[in-house]
Amino acid sequence: MDENTLIKLAEQLKAGELTPLDFVSKLKKYPFENVAGGEVKLDNHRPLRKGFAEIVYCPGKSASQIEAIAEALKDTEHNTLFSRVSREQNAVISRIISDAVYHEKANMTGVPREKFEKKRSGLTVVTAGSSDVPVAEEAAVTAEYMGCNAERLYDVGIAGIHRLLSHLDVLQTSKVIIAVAGMEGALPSVVGGLVNCPVIAVPTSVGYGASFGGVAALLTMLNSCSTGVAVVNIDNGLGAGFFAARILIGKV
Amino acid sequence: MDENTLIKLAEQLKAGELTPLDFVSKLKKYPFENVAGGEVKLDNHRPLRKGFAEIVYCPGKSASQIEAIAEALKDTEHNTLFSRVSREQNAVISRIISDAVYHEKANMTGVPREKFEKKRSGLTVVTAGSSDVPVAEEAAVTAEYMGCNAERLYDVGIAGIHRLLSHLDVLQTSKVIIAVAGMEGALPSVVGGLVNCPVIAVPTSVGYGASFGGVAALLTMLNSCSTGVAVVNIDNGLGAGFFAARILIGKV
Amino acid sequence: MDENTLIKLAEQLKAGELTPLDFVSKLKKYPFENVAGGEVKLDNHRPLRKGFAEIVYCPGKSASQIEAIAEALKDTEHNTLFSRVSREQNAVISRIISDAVYHEKANMTGVPREKFEKKRSGLTVVTAGSSDVPVAEEAAVTAEYMGCNAERLYDVGIAGIHRLLSHLDVLQTSKVIIAVAGMEGALPSVVGGLVNCPVIAVPTSVGYGASFGGVAALLTMLNSCSTGVAVVNIDNGLGAGFFAARILIGKV
Amino acid sequence: MDENTLIKLAEQLKAGELTPLDFVSKLKKYPFENVAGGEVKLDNHRPLRKGFAEIVYCPGKSASQIEAIAEALKDTEHNTLFSRVSREQNAVISRIISDAVYHEKANMTGVPREKFEKKRSGLTVVTAGSSDVPVAEEAAVTAEYMGCNAERLYDVGIAGIHRLLSHLDVLQTSKVIIAVAGMEGALPSVVGGLVNCPVIAVPTSVGYGASFGGVAALLTMLNSCSTGVAVVNIDNGLGAGFFAARILIGKV
Amino acid sequence: MDENTLIKLAEQLKAGELTPLDFVSKLKKYPFENVAGGEVKLDNHRPLRKGFAEIVYCPGKSASQIEAIAEALKDTEHNTLFSRVSREQNAVISRIISDAVYHEKANMTGVPREKFEKKRSGLTVVTAGSSDVPVAEEAAVTAEYMGCNAERLYDVGIAGIHRLLSHLDVLQTSKVIIAVAGMEGALPSVVGGLVNCPVIAVPTSVGYGASFGGVAALLTMLNSCSTGVAVVNIDNGLGAGFFAARILIGKV
Amino acid sequence: MDENTLIKLAEQLKAGELTPLDFVSKLKKYPFENVAGGEVKLDNHRPLRKGFAEIVYCPGKSASQIEAIAEALKDTEHNTLFSRVSREQNAVISRIISDAVYHEKANMTGVPREKFEKKRSGLTVVTAGSSDVPVAEEAAVTAEYMGCNAERLYDVGIAGIHRLLSHLDVLQTSKVIIAVAGMEGALPSVVGGLVNCPVIAVPTSVGYGASFGGVAALLTMLNSCSTGVAVVNIDNGLGAGFFAARILIGKV
Amino acid sequence: MDENTLIKLAEQLKAGELTPLDFVSKLKKYPFENVAGGEVKLDNHRPLRKGFAEIVYCPGKSASQIEAIAEALKDTEHNTLFSRVSREQNAVISRIISDAVYHEKANMTGVPREKFEKKRSGLTVVTAGSSDVPVAEEAAVTAEYMGCNAERLYDVGIAGIHRLLSHLDVLQTSKVIIAVAGMEGALPSVVGGLVNCPVIAVPTSVGYGASFGGVAALLTMLNSCSTGVAVVNIDNGLGAGFFAARILIGKV
Amino acid sequence: MDENTLIKLAEQLKAGELTPLDFVSKLKKYPFENVAGGEVKLDNHRPLRKGFAEIVYCPGKSASQIEAIAEALKDTEHNTLFSRVSREQNAVISRIISDAVYHEKANMTGVPREKFEKKRSGLTVVTAGSSDVPVAEEAAVTAEYMGCNAERLYDVGIAGIHRLLSHLDVLQTSKVIIAVAGMEGALPSVVGGLVNCPVIAVPTSVGYGASFGGVAALLTMLNSCSTGVAVVNIDNGLGAGFFAARILIGKV
Repeated sequence: MDENTLIKLAEQLKAGELTPLDFVSKLKKYPFENVAGGEVKLDNHRPLRKGFAEIVYCPGKSASQIEAIAEALKDTEHNTLFSRVSREQNAVISRIISDAVYHEKANMTGVPREKFEKKRSGLTVVTAGSSDVPVAEEAAVTAEYMGCNAERLYDVGIAGIHRLLSHLDVLQTSKVIIAVAGMEGALPSVVGGLVNCPVIAVPTSVGYGASFGGVAALLTMLNSCSTGVAVVNIDNGLGAGFFAARILIGKV
Repeated sequence: MDENTLIKLAEQLKAGELTPLDFVSKLKKYPFENVAGGEVKLDNHRPLRKGFAEIVYCPGKSASQIEAIAEALKDTEHNTLFSRVSREQNAVISRIISDAVYHEKANMTGVPREKFEKKRSGLTVVTAGSSDVPVAEEAAVTAEYMGCNAERLYDVGIAGIHRLLSHLDVLQTSKVIIAVAGMEGALPSVVGGLVNCPVIAVPTSVGYGASFGGVAALLTMLNSCSTGVAVVNIDNGLGAGFFAARILIGKV
Repeated sequence: MDENTLIKLAEQLKAGELTPLDFVSKLKKYPFENVAGGEVKLDNHRPLRKGFAEIVYCPGKSASQIEAIAEALKDTEHNTLFSRVSREQNAVISRIISDAVYHEKANMTGVPREKFEKKRSGLTVVTAGSSDVPVAEEAAVTAEYMGCNAERLYDVGIAGIHRLLSHLDVLQTSKVIIAVAGMEGALPSVVGGLVNCPVIAVPTSVGYGASFGGVAALLTMLNSCSTGVAVVNIDNGLGAGFFAARILIGKV
Repeated sequence: MDENTLIKLAEQLKAGELTPLDFVSKLKKYPFENVAGGEVKLDNHRPLRKGFAEIVYCPGKSASQIEAIAEALKDTEHNTLFSRVSREQNAVISRIISDAVYHEKANMTGVPREKFEKKRSGLTVVTAGSSDVPVAEEAAVTAEYMGCNAERLYDVGIAGIHRLLSHLDVLQTSKVIIAVAGMEGALPSVVGGLVNCPVIAVPTSVGYGASFGGVAALLTMLNSCSTGVAVVNIDNGLGAGFFAARILIGKV
Repeated sequence: MDENTLIKLAEQLKAGELTPLDFVSKLKKYPFENVAGGEVKLDNHRPLRKGFAEIVYCPGKSASQIEAIAEALKDTEHNTLFSRVSREQNAVISRIISDAVYHEKANMTGVPREKFEKKRSGLTVVTAGSSDVPVAEEAAVTAEYMGCNAERLYDVGIAGIHRLLSHLDVLQTSKVIIAVAGMEGALPSVVGGLVNCPVIAVPTSVGYGASFGGVAALLTMLNSCSTGVAVVNIDNGLGAGFFAARILIGKV
Repeated sequence: MDENTLIKLAEQLKAGELTPLDFVSKLKKYPFENVAGGEVKLDNHRPLRKGFAEIVYCPGKSASQIEAIAEALKDTEHNTLFSRVSREQNAVISRIISDAVYHEKANMTGVPREKFEKKRSGLTVVTAGSSDVPVAEEAAVTAEYMGCNAERLYDVGIAGIHRLLSHLDVLQTSKVIIAVAGMEGALPSVVGGLVNCPVIAVPTSVGYGASFGGVAALLTMLNSCSTGVAVVNIDNGLGAGFFAARILIGKV
Repeated sequence: MDENTLIKLAEQLKAGELTPLDFVSKLKKYPFENVAGGEVKLDNHRPLRKGFAEIVYCPGKSASQIEAIAEALKDTEHNTLFSRVSREQNAVISRIISDAVYHEKANMTGVPREKFEKKRSGLTVVTAGSSDVPVAEEAAVTAEYMGCNAERLYDVGIAGIHRLLSHLDVLQTSKVIIAVAGMEGALPSVVGGLVNCPVIAVPTSVGYGASFGGVAALLTMLNSCSTGVAVVNIDNGLGAGFFAARILIGKV
Repeated sequence: MDENTLIKLAEQLKAGELTPLDFVSKLKKYPFENVAGGEVKLDNHRPLRKGFAEIVYCPGKSASQIEAIAEALKDTEHNTLFSRVSREQNAVISRIISDAVYHEKANMTGVPREKFEKKRSGLTVVTAGSSDVPVAEEAAVTAEYMGCNAERLYDVGIAGIHRLLSHLDVLQTSKVIIAVAGMEGALPSVVGGLVNCPVIAVPTSVGYGASFGGVAALLTMLNSCSTGVAVVNIDNGLGAGFFAARILIGKV
């Protein structure tokens, strides 16, 4: 829980400005808002605790749930993203939020409300194949809504390693790299062996047969003999983009 | 490959100071050293490319292999670590390298040769239980040899969440957190929901029955609903420590 | 088999009121009724043995099978439930049983025939996310048809743990809690660490990638380090509701 | 967290008897005690929150850790259990705590300190085979230390179902049943079909080949077509005993 | 290969009635017939070697392949079965083979051409639930086309064990029993404990969640503690019926 | 339950020779005997219900448990087997039962007490390799104690299919075949394609790497494209021998 | 990277004909061509490095991506293949490349541009069943576009081993064999035991139940007790055909 | 079966030089020799069918079995190998066969009896790490006993890809490459992208955590996006060496 808020409330309580009952009720009301009859709780507290925007995961949500959420968020001051959005869901959102932007390749709808004085640079997103692009775009767009720039290098997998090596300069001057790959998933290991910045590996469900929907790539990445590689869930571009932005906007 | 070296060699080649044949032979000789009859290749290039020390993974290596490696490394200027070292292997190393330090809880032997003007701070290592400590120590010691300080919070798992919450201030002022847990592995998710820095999750093989040697914890962490969490291999404290250090010493 | 019935039959046999042949034939006829040409056997014995209503699992049953079952059950004195009912199946049931009630969110059709003098209280159903609601509703409706009240707390997962903690009073005064979660499934562990009543964990198939259709959540729950947690099958809200009601209506 | 304690502290804070700083420090000190250099945190808060004794999981703990824990617990007023204790660990505990009792079949050491006015009855523990007895004993002893009586019915698996049926009266008058089985694990389903109380299923790792260390039994139990069955982890007798006691001592 | 045929050919070869070349060409031509351009080879040899009818597995076969096969088989003297046939495929077959019979519940089309003087009796097919009926019918129909009678007992699963016990006389006078069950799959074990004839267990893909498409039932059956149980593949009613018929028409 | 016994008891009950109470108590006492303090229940009923000997599974049983069981069985009139017996356990048994026979290759100790007028013939046991022999011997010895003769053909796996084909006459005149194989487990399929009697497939844990302790062989056998093959658990020679004997001594 | 090209460039660099900057830019431009906005990189370098044609994997590629690729390839001098092409994708390709050939059974579209003076012979492709034909055709067509002839033997699985043995002459005179099988996947082992050339095993996803989409066949093949067998991914006919052609056109 | 032998026998049969009975008995006696009481069948036919030496897999074989096999093989004219031999087993062999050679790193004992006029060259064996060497040596020694030379490149994994690239010339002039790797297993894919000869991938069980004893590496290799890669079982160096030799000594 956000420390400053807690301290202020505790001081009000001590000063008698709040009764213990009020104190509890304050805590309860503050951090989220009930939407769609209580089934969805928007986390208003998140911008404080997490440092930025609400992210709404859309699969399985009905049109009316999406509508209720869009209504609740339409006046937010924070950048907001709807992920894995269908064309139909995007239409619902766009009708309610007029400045919403549809990022088709990333399957995302964004609500850009924040001005970043200076975008953080140094993020590179690479993919092994062209089928990995949607996951990579999800990562890139997420980081961009969090105030970062993202350089994209797509279809540079290891079957033709010269394609990767020809971009060695970009890789070696990056501050953080997101490496996206399906099938055998060896790209992050090779990248990790070439650079000295953190590499976030994203397995994708691209492949067939013994790729088992991304499990083969996931295992490859977890067992990477290149140190400096960490992994997120299969197809979790959003998590990778978020994690990368966290690194870039850290207090170091 | 290290860019500056490459450029210099290319310029020498162009200037006629190197024949194409010399150029190739230069490249071949430089980056590693054959040890133990060619079966082990020490990567001298690594300090340049990776920014720091050699790490020797010891399981399965014979006494004579360890001896050969220790001989080859004994005059290194860089910090060096032997990981998952047995008591016997540590004895071999210590006999050859007099200033080697045995980190018993981490099962590591270190060779500290570098002076860091100012250690990087902001790393916190937390564990769910006391059985997770060896993995956590491996992470902490790795980061320390790479020039970071590591704060330790052990046995603060979620079965008694007040133990974790009582350290909220430490968690919320960290720059990067390594969260180590076996069994159900839920600690990183809870931590990830409380902070706004990157959280590196390390599943451990602690548990029984359907924990499947760490698989249950691994899956929990990969599926974390808290964004800002990335995962390394089961029991891979070294990888987590290395990744955390990469973040802290980044160029951001 | 119901003890009293058995004893009475045995006494009749002894008294010569029943031949051994009759005895066997009595046993065979009594406890169930053949429906749909013998392919379905309605368990009339169940209200005696189990203490309440028939529950009909509907997936894969044809319209004519559903029709036959509805006909056979339409005059029951006991509460009855059709689970995982499709809209089409509900229409068939409603045509035959005029007082049938469609619980859309729970995908259930109920036939309420029993009056409970006093509903049992103390059951709380919590979900991690809004996508887990259908499974939670299945649990809640099941318990309600068995004579319990169910309090619902939805979308209080651990990614924002303050949402959960703000309801600590409800949780700590519950007599039994059903905790429903997909993805990483850590909610029951956190709840289990906060309360001193039994917690029934229900993994859901909500998630993607390495959630493996609910397996990740299932493993998390089975490995819970919080004692006082037991688990039912993935998406098995019905089983959880039934089990909870069993506890509340026990003879303690 | 314990509600009464929280309320009292909040009132003290409001009354000015506690500064906000004291309030926090109070919270931090109270609920656990650092043992073995901080690597183990004994949860003194647990008797309040959970209603009873500390349970120490012993595998992997060194003699000196066990010693430190035994020292810290030797004057507890609450019942305490050491689980999966080795003969050596039991010897260490018994040396320090003179009234410790070794339950050999359950692999547990208990410290009985509480007098229960009236033991709760109604718990029956059944096993499929004689190899399942250690897990069943762990369950029974746990429940006994929590103030319950446990009736034992061992080696009544379904391969000779008459062994089970001959105890129908005991089963049908139980308030809660723990059913322990390895191999195919079908016992809980059969029991669940005969009774109307909650059945807690415990898969064991007994078996060979495709039993996969208890996975086959676990899956059988999770898929039980008998409603009223919930499951704990493989070999987790402790969890089953704890859960059963929770039901019996509930506030219903 | 059929011994008598082999011997006869060898004697013809020896007698000079066949050249070695003819001998080989005889062997090649005899046992199968190329259909659909060589992609399908009908095994004419099978009635000799196996003792009865051709069985055509239909999934994935195109209308024209089915047509070619039906043409090739339309004048067979042996009983023939098309399994897992779709309505469309059945229509194709029926158009070509006028006496073909559609067994809808079994998803089979049969061509009955053999007269059995006396059908073998003693086969009982039992199912745990009504959803298991299609697999059970596949087993029963297969055995019937091989000259056996099959008694059917459906929906007698163990959740209400009295349904099964009321048919004890049928079970205990059977010569071979096929027990079909999904979900937890415990029926064959219970049956196996009650009878002294071989029990063939058929797991079905009926279930959800951790039933994993029949794997849970399969494991239960493989681990059956009742001796006298053998298992076939998930949903493989045909294999079970065939195996049962083999037993009944054996030379014992 | 044994039909004749049941009928007699029911008639006695009807005739007033038994009170209902006596009837129940008769049923309870008859079918098993408590051994080792109730932890083991010897199934005296089994010879009636199953048609032959008690089989004691020995792994995990202590010397004193084995001793108690041997004492209880030493005067049995029925053939009895101790399976997976260690040398030490065999010594205990032999000390108590003087005519016990140690079948070393099968890891079994037998107590031969029955005279079979005429042994059933027609069983052939084949193995793919020489490492599969212990499992095959377990099958053969089991069948022999149940009154069958067993012909053995070992090390005739498909890597050199001529070894198998040279025994075609034995295979094709068998009444039932047990085919034992590890690694890829293809032997039963090939055998099944050559004969017209039932083939019982036994996967063994022989192999390495992706054989996964017998799982590869198990899957091969379950997926056999040869009809007429059924499968038992990995390494379960006993189950296969028992099943085969059931077929041979059937009432057909 | 192609050695000759590298050497030439290095010599030009040395001779001053290339600046280091030009050298790098040369390397970058040469080996691939950006298509579809950079998301697809056609590997022009591949004919040099691999010895032949580009292969485009089509699943998941949009019509416009296919179009862009076809445009880029339409004037290639090398043989080219589009694999797993849908009817729609084939139509797009055919519209742009007039001499494209649709291989329907193989789901491939080929662009034949090379004249092979003499096709390599000695490749035989065998399948266990008729459902395996599409995978076999993919293998055969791939090898044919690489300059080989492929003999086809389909539906010769081991359930009727005489079908296979009747083609022994073809098998034993082959130089390399591709053996394609689903279900139990035993065909390659049997073939491997009969011949002395390399056998490439291709598991297919044909089957049901415990075939797990080809995993059973894959494991069988990996565990083959016949030496001389290597395996490719499930359904990977292309990989098998490519590998076989590599062997036939090797420099031996 | 060897064609020439078959033809000769058939001609003798036809000529009346062999009776049909003799013909069969000839076939039965020829191809193998019973050793150790029939439990082991040495395949004398193999040199004819396979083109070279007997290979004896030693794990699980008793000293007396090894002794019997060594006696039977001691006068062979063909090269022979004992694989996965223990020191004790090697001692037994060496006592009987005086010219046996112990290849310690490969865990093999060889009996070199053949003179190869000219060894085949072009085989390169590469490993990712030094722990993979035993498997690589097993491959290399096997190929050497089959008449090939093997060049070794060890510890050239992709974490430092310059180690691999510095040997590009060796790789690109090879005729067949065996690539051995554990952990993530990416080496064969990278190699496969650099060369135009067949690459045989061997996963090893080197690794920990989610490497699952070689499964991660196996999956990586099966999913390789580099065409021209085929895979053998985990740790199966022998199979890889054999397969490679088959390619090199092919009739191409």
